[in-house]
Amino acid sequence: MKIDHIAIAVNDVEESAKVYQQALGVDNVEFETVETEGVKVAIIHLENGRVELMQPTNDSSPIKKFLDKKGPGLHHMALETDNIEGEVERMEGCGIQFLGQIRPGSAGTKVTFIHPKSLHGVLAELCSHPKQ
Amino acid sequence: MKIDHIAIAVNDVEESAKVYQQALGVDNVEFETVETEGVKVAIIHLENGRVELMQPTNDSSPIKKFLDKKGPGLHHMALETDNIEGEVERMEGCGIQFLGQIRPGSAGTKVTFIHPKSLHGVLAELCSHPKQ
Repeated sequence: MKIDHIAIAVNDVEESAKVYQQALGVDNVEFETVETEGVKVAIIHLENGRVELMQPTNDSSPIKKFLDKKGPGLHHMALETDNIEGEVERMEGCGIQFLGQIRPGSAGTKVTFIHPKSLHGVLAELCSHPKQ
Repeated sequence: MKIDHIAIAVNDVEESAKVYQQALGVDNVEFETVETEGVKVAIIHLENGRVELMQPTNDSSPIKKFLDKKGPGLHHMALETDNIEGEVERMEGCGIQFLGQIRPGSAGTKVTFIHPKSLHGVLAELCSHPKQ
């Protein structure tokens, strides 16, 4: 299990990406819109993982609800595994609850989310990258 | 710049450590008390970084205030650099504001914190590990 990325809810992903790029001294930023999750994402590549800034693309986006309730800030942590199906089965055996099934994420990934009540208040994404 | 750890505020670090160990399938957990920051920490080692659970050790701990206001959850992200003095100087040159000077952290580290208003609502630790 590895840290894949740290996801942050922001109001304006382009403006926040400039601030983060300058603060972290990073040139390498990609933008991507994931319509199924209702987000536009700025992906900031660090040496061993990514920081992802997420702006809602519509009013029913979970990120819109998060921003309305809590304002911009840390939204979730994402953990990478080689075998998402096996990990979900193992975790369900421990009583961990998930938000939805394993589904396609961006760039060929498979993703699901651990319910915050199973991790003492923390929303955690579980993801697998496509085999190279 | 690398992701060093993800820090999570919890009410009971021993109980939360058990939940996280089981969920993440990790045996390797260390406990440490950092009196200067008013926290007891459970350090969960993943392949490329750590998840740190933090319980306040006294009522004036910043983690106590966070828990009273927001409840348990993601508290800050920590980024590692080889040269914390140089990074702080570079960031201050960009107008980034810090919470306190560079100071000793746990296990020989040097740490400081970027003010959340400089990162659109996110508290970020900047740390350097001692040279091996």
